[in-house]
Amino acid sequence: MKACKLFRVVDRPELADKDAALTPLCSGDEHADRQFGKGLHREIAVLQEMLYAEHRRKVLLVLQGVDCAGKDGTVHRLFRKINPMGLRPVRFDVPTAAETARDFLWRVHLQVPRQGEIAVFNRSHYEDVLHPVVHDLIDGRETDRRYAQIRDFERMLAESGTTIVKVFLHISKDEQRRRLQDRIDDVEKHWKFDPDDLKNRRKWSAYQAAYERAIAETDAPHAPWYIVPADSKPHRDIAVAALLAETMRGMNLAYPPGDPKLAKLRVK
Amino acid sequence: MKACKLFRVVDRPELADKDAALTPLCSGDEHADRQFGKGLHREIAVLQEMLYAEHRRKVLLVLQGVDCAGKDGTVHRLFRKINPMGLRPVRFDVPTAAETARDFLWRVHLQVPRQGEIAVFNRSHYEDVLHPVVHDLIDGRETDRRYAQIRDFERMLAESGTTIVKVFLHISKDEQRRRLQDRIDDVEKHWKFDPDDLKNRRKWSAYQAAYERAIAETDAPHAPWYIVPADSKPHRDIAVAALLAETMRGMNLAYPPGDPKLAKLRVK
Repeated sequence: MKACKLFRVVDRPELADKDAALTPLCSGDEHADRQFGKGLHREIAVLQEMLYAEHRRKVLLVLQGVDCAGKDGTVHRLFRKINPMGLRPVRFDVPTAAETARDFLWRVHLQVPRQGEIAVFNRSHYEDVLHPVVHDLIDGRETDRRYAQIRDFERMLAESGTTIVKVFLHISKDEQRRRLQDRIDDVEKHWKFDPDDLKNRRKWSAYQAAYERAIAETDAPHAPWYIVPADSKPHRDIAVAALLAETMRGMNLAYPPGDPKLAKLRVK
Repeated sequence: MKACKLFRVVDRPELADKDAALTPLCSGDEHADRQFGKGLHREIAVLQEMLYAEHRRKVLLVLQGVDCAGKDGTVHRLFRKINPMGLRPVRFDVPTAAETARDFLWRVHLQVPRQGEIAVFNRSHYEDVLHPVVHDLIDGRETDRRYAQIRDFERMLAESGTTIVKVFLHISKDEQRRRLQDRIDDVEKHWKFDPDDLKNRRKWSAYQAAYERAIAETDAPHAPWYIVPADSKPHRDIAVAALLAETMRGMNLAYPPGDPKLAKLRVK
């Protein structure tokens, strides 16, 4: 999947609104794209079974993005074919009292994938260098310390057998407006609407700058960031599936070798 | 789904081998059955989204059965259409040192579903009244205490807004033999084969008796047991899907009402 290189972060990323609408992985033929996506979902399911069978390494997919960027939708579509027993989907909401009473990595560490698992983080420890930065709840020194702590934490996970892939779902300010308005206009979607989303939207530029900095500070060969253009949902889904499949292909997974002792065993 | 009543436990259940091959929910027309199953999967996905939107109640599906009964396969097929963010699949393996250092319900309690979640337990606290009973690791008094503790625990969960449904996947001794032999004959499936399965198989009758007693002791209106004939995988899948769908229909789930204050809001 050479095309995925398109999304790889190089030095300081720039989250330009115009790039959110790109669809480099779509062919223009909807049917063909859907088939391509299905093939990737099936491949991910097989790779995950091999990961589970191997029972040694782990995979961590981090999904970040502004409100309405499509984190939930991505998880829903990406893991269609997978056996849920090997998947650990984790949503990080506003921290509880028990969580804020510890360091910000505590609740994240509790949820890292086990051997044989894919964990998908819907939001993550990156929230702790976004909201507090935008709202001036921590100073520059503390922000720098957190970047370093995230780098250390992710390196430790990688050294302990976790393959990490981090995805920023990149939508434009206009697309966010459309999606928020949709939630308001459809009475059945009101439960998805959070008034805080409008507050955050007013700080759009500050959030984009915080994402750019966080991505630049924590991009690493063992924990790479990819910026996925996500105004188009079909493109977003194909791109994330392609990234995960490519990442897992690189792990050279295989079913464990058979046990010769079992060759002639007859069950009574 | 009147047919589900077939599987409802009445007094002391009898796990007769011959009943494992029944297929009361299959029509005889494979294509029609597949369509029926797909419809149930879609319905479960919608009900789960409503459960999530409501964000108040919880659902707990307990899956038990002997080795090779199809617990993993059931989870894989049952939740095809669901958004994984609302699903908590939990596997209870041999307890760790940290787990045996507590009471047997400790690790289970940690994994009960959150508001809006469906948790599916692949094995559960019932293992603690099976293996230790069959192998004489606990005496009759302790066994009775555990039944009572399970009853109390499940009643507390139900009183706290958890809808519980417990399924025993019932296969015959012959069908288990075939499935174990399949794992042995297919080199790519050796990783699924556990020599302990053969040891447990030698205690088949003792295990069946332990299941019968555990089911009889803990069947309750708020935590019902269903014995699902599972020699036929298509039947097993349809039956469990039908049971879960029927259970969730009974919860009268709906999307929360819209918020009138949002009616004229325009996002800028």
